[in-house]
Order: sequence, then C-alpha cells, then structure tokens
Amino acid sequence: MHEFEVLKLLYTRLDVGDDCAVIPFQDTNLLLTTDMLHRATDFPEGTEAYTVGWRTAAVSLSDIAAMGGRPLGLVVALGAPRFSKEFIEELLAGLEDCCHLVNGRLLGGDIDHHRELTLVSTALGVAKKPVLRSGAKTGDLVCVTHGLGRTAAALKLFELTQVEKANELFRFTPRVEEGLKLAPYADAMIDISDGLARSLHQLSEASGVGFAIEYERLPLLPEIAGLAADERERREMALYTGEDFELLFTIPQAGLEEAQGAVKFTAIGRALKERKILLRVNGKLEELEDRGYEH
Amino acid sequence: MHEFEVLKLLYTRLDVGDDCAVIPFQDTNLLLTTDMLHRATDFPEGTEAYTVGWRTAAVSLSDIAAMGGRPLGLVVALGAPRFSKEFIEELLAGLEDCCHLVNGRLLGGDIDHHRELTLVSTALGVAKKPVLRSGAKTGDLVCVTHGLGRTAAALKLFELTQVEKANELFRFTPRVEEGLKLAPYADAMIDISDGLARSLHQLSEASGVGFAIEYERLPLLPEIAGLAADERERREMALYTGEDFELLFTIPQAGLEEAQGAVKFTAIGRALKERKILLRVNGKLEELEDRGYEH
Repeated sequence: MHEFEVLKLLYTRLDVGDDCAVIPFQDTNLLLTTDMLHRATDFPEGTEAYTVGWRTAAVSLSDIAAMGGRPLGLVVALGAPRFSKEFIEELLAGLEDCCHLVNGRLLGGDIDHHRELTLVSTALGVAKKPVLRSGAKTGDLVCVTHGLGRTAAALKLFELTQVEKANELFRFTPRVEEGLKLAPYADAMIDISDGLARSLHQLSEASGVGFAIEYERLPLLPEIAGLAADERERREMALYTGEDFELLFTIPQAGLEEAQGAVKFTAIGRALKERKILLRVNGKLEELEDRGYEH
Repeated sequence: MHEFEVLKLLYTRLDVGDDCAVIPFQDTNLLLTTDMLHRATDFPEGTEAYTVGWRTAAVSLSDIAAMGGRPLGLVVALGAPRFSKEFIEELLAGLEDCCHLVNGRLLGGDIDHHRELTLVSTALGVAKKPVLRSGAKTGDLVCVTHGLGRTAAALKLFELTQVEKANELFRFTPRVEEGLKLAPYADAMIDISDGLARSLHQLSEASGVGFAIEYERLPLLPEIAGLAADERERREMALYTGEDFELLFTIPQAGLEEAQGAVKFTAIGRALKERKILLRVNGKLEELEDRGYEH
C-alpha cells in the first residue's frame, strides 16, 4: 500500500471534512480543532520564538474563524529539546498576544522534552450555525478575504535572510472577526491552509459544485510582485504555496452588497454546476490542478 | 537560569493548577486538557500500536475524569516518520475503543510527518460543578480508586519482554464512571499521573492542607508483589513511579458510606492542618518526598 493511500485512509478516519469538529451542545455547537507544527516543516531558520508562539495559536484560531465561530480558548502542548527562559517567555507572549487579538484565551497546556521543537495547539470555539464546506451552490460567488501569497512571500524572505519582514508576514491575523461577520451570508467557508487551488478542490468535493476563477481578480499581496522571479513563480505563489490563512467562501449574489458592507473581501469567481475547477488566464480557461503545500 | 526554574516558569503560565482548564459556559463548565506523548519517553519497545492509541486517548480522558467531568470528545494530532496501513488501523482502533469505553468520541485530528512518533490528545468535557484540587479540608479522608503500581508493573514487564501482559496493563481504564459518581462527595480530586507522592503534594499545595498516609492501606496491584525485587523497590513502584491514572480524592468522613455505596475505593489516610505529607510505615511516621515520574 502506497503511503499516500495510507494517509488517505487516515484522513478519512481523522479528518472531519471541515476545519473543526462540530459538537452539538445545548442550544448551540462547540467547535474543536487541533494542529501540529514542528521545526523541520513549519519554522524556517530565522523564525523568532515570538513568531513560533503566534503562528501556533493562529493556525487553530483560523480554523475556528473558517466555521464562523467565536473562540473560547486554546490549549498548547509544547515539546522542545531544551528550555531557555528567553525562548519560553517570547513563545508564551506570541501565543497570548495572538489569542488576545481575536478575543481568545490561552487556557493551559502540557510540556515535554522532545528532540525536535514540536507544538500542538487545540482551539475550542462556539457557533450557533457553523458554516460548513459543503454548502456552496451553483451560481454562488467565490470570495476571499484580504490578500493571497503571505506565506509564499515570507518563505522567500526567510531564504533571502530578510527575517524581520519574514517574521512579520508569518504572524498572520486569524480572520475571526471576518468569519463571524460573514457567517450570516456565506453558504460555505474554509481557510486557505494548503493553497487556493487545494482549498477550492476541498470546497468542490464537499459541496459537489465546481468553480470558475478569474486569475486577474486574485488579490495578490504586493510583496509577491517584488519576490517572484517570473510569471510562472508568481502563479505558483498565489495558487499553490498555501498557508495564506485567508477565508475562502461562497455567497449568493443577492447577499453580496450587504456582506461587503460588513467585511472587505474580493469576489474571484463563481460556483459551477459541473465539478471542475477552472482558472481563466488571459481569457483562456484551464483546469486548476489539485495540488498544494505539503506540510 | 537552571532548566528546572525555566520549567517552573512555564508551568506557572501553562499549568492551570488543575487536571483541565475550566471554561464557564452557559449554565455549566467546559473542561479542556491536552497531553503530549512520544516514542522516547512514553512508549517502551514492545508497545503495540493499539496500545499507543489507547493510552493516548486514555491520558486525556483521565484528566476529564479527575474533575468529575463527562467527556464530550477527543481530537488527536499524530506525527510519525512513516505510516503503514496496519499501524494506523491499530492505532485508530485503540483510540476509538478507549473513547467508546467511557462514552467519549474520537472527533478528528491532524497528521504530520515527524521524525519521532508523537501524539497529542486533547479532550473536551463538561461538568456542572468540577471537582478541583483545591478543595481538600482538614480531617477529610484521602482515598484512591482501584490499585496502585500499574505502570510500574508494566514497565518491568516490558523490560522482561513479557509484552502481552505489559500492553494489557498499559491500556488502563480512564476512571470516568468513578469520577462522575464521586463528584457529589469529593472535596478535591486529581488523577495520579506522576505518582502518588507527587499527586499528594499537588493536592496539598492547591488545598493548603497536609496528609498522613498509611502505607499498609495502599491498594497495591497484585502484579507488583512478584515484580519488585525487594521492599525498597516495592515502595518505589507504589509511591513514585507514577502513571497509575487512578483517582486520588478527599471526602468528608460523613460522606464515606454513601460514596462507598456508589464506587469501590480505598481510604488511605487523612488530611492534616499542617502542610506536611507524612507516611506511616510500621508505626513510624516519615515525610514523603516530593518527587515523581519525570516524563
């Protein structure tokens, strides 16, 4: 059995098919999501302890945001080969500051000696009516918050040892406020963790619709322009590198104006009846591959 | 700064002072707890994948039990160097079976490639009136569920390559049922994760009382007798090795009979006004050291 098959099996059993597990509770729903980050894959040379903490909190809070949820709190398991006071204090400050930014709370955690710096954050949230991945309807507008290419740009800057700017980009804001405001309008929502292309495919699988995306409308971060060597790389950064942690959602045309009054976002395409993901570049339609950032 | 000081600092910020973080929610309280386990420290050679999964779920569910809580569900982050179908299926079966045993549910998780097998389980629970570590009162009886020395015995058996029996002992039952039944009677409760001695010190610190424990009354598992080389080792296994995952709690004398009608447990001593942890062995009182199993 090929490893990919095994992972697929595992995903089927562990992946709940949404950004969070949904637990009906009293008259509402609790949301629970967990994410593992570790040195080798998630924190390039130059990542500050504060940024490590921030990003650890942010990835799980972003999952709460993607369901239109309100964070109740976060717990963190930390494994590290050694503990210096400075490192720990900065890490905790990053965790706490990110939580506070979205009205969340660092509630506690567990620590352990571990050969490799490893962090697992678990966020708890609540949503009366969680926005699922499965609600997109033919004709819906496909929209994205803020800009794409944040992590792609940060990784380039780490490579170029421009670590200050790279760290800044790495400390993304979980779109909790946007998620809460969009929840009444959105038919389906997801956060872009593995790249726009992968997230579109995930929405498509869950909702049973396709999408036609206008490449020219993608709100690329200005940082990308100066960092991509050519058009090919620019597209790669915008579509496939991933970890943008923006909200990708669909809304009916009728709700557009009201939603745009509440939150700033960009409509980038439409949901199709046919289950294909199409990208229009220079007037030509091509199929968008189902590949993304491999964590 | 010595590493121990750094860890203390970290504990102060991450440790909530109880087995779970308590989140007041509507007319009740949510409980959230996270635990990291990994190959080097938690799974000796011979630990089956099924046992790895079981124990991963059980450690967090035991924390819910220790607050007198009812589990709502569990999420698990899994990092592993490679994924074989058999390993994954057994691991998931262990996770699921342990959850089902206590009416919990495996809700989802995250997977990641990692050099070392690393699992983090996070359990969500609910308790109208969580039993804290801080409620023990002078004169209370100190009690423990079932038997002590389970992990001590299992570790010995792993060493002796008696892996079947070792795995069986390693798959402990989270005392959820007992916790729920004891909650109305207990003044304070904790699960014994780092050994009876360490847990008594933790209860003492939180409650501001001391304890006098009768060594002869400790309900040692029968397995210990045949495995300890001498009396010194027997005491070590009973008091310090830890990971018994039994409930240690205090109740007023007046509640004893009723509580014993609901749950089987053993009274092993009394809470004292003076903040000392005393052990009576052969009629002599000695102070019980504050040391335990280092994970």
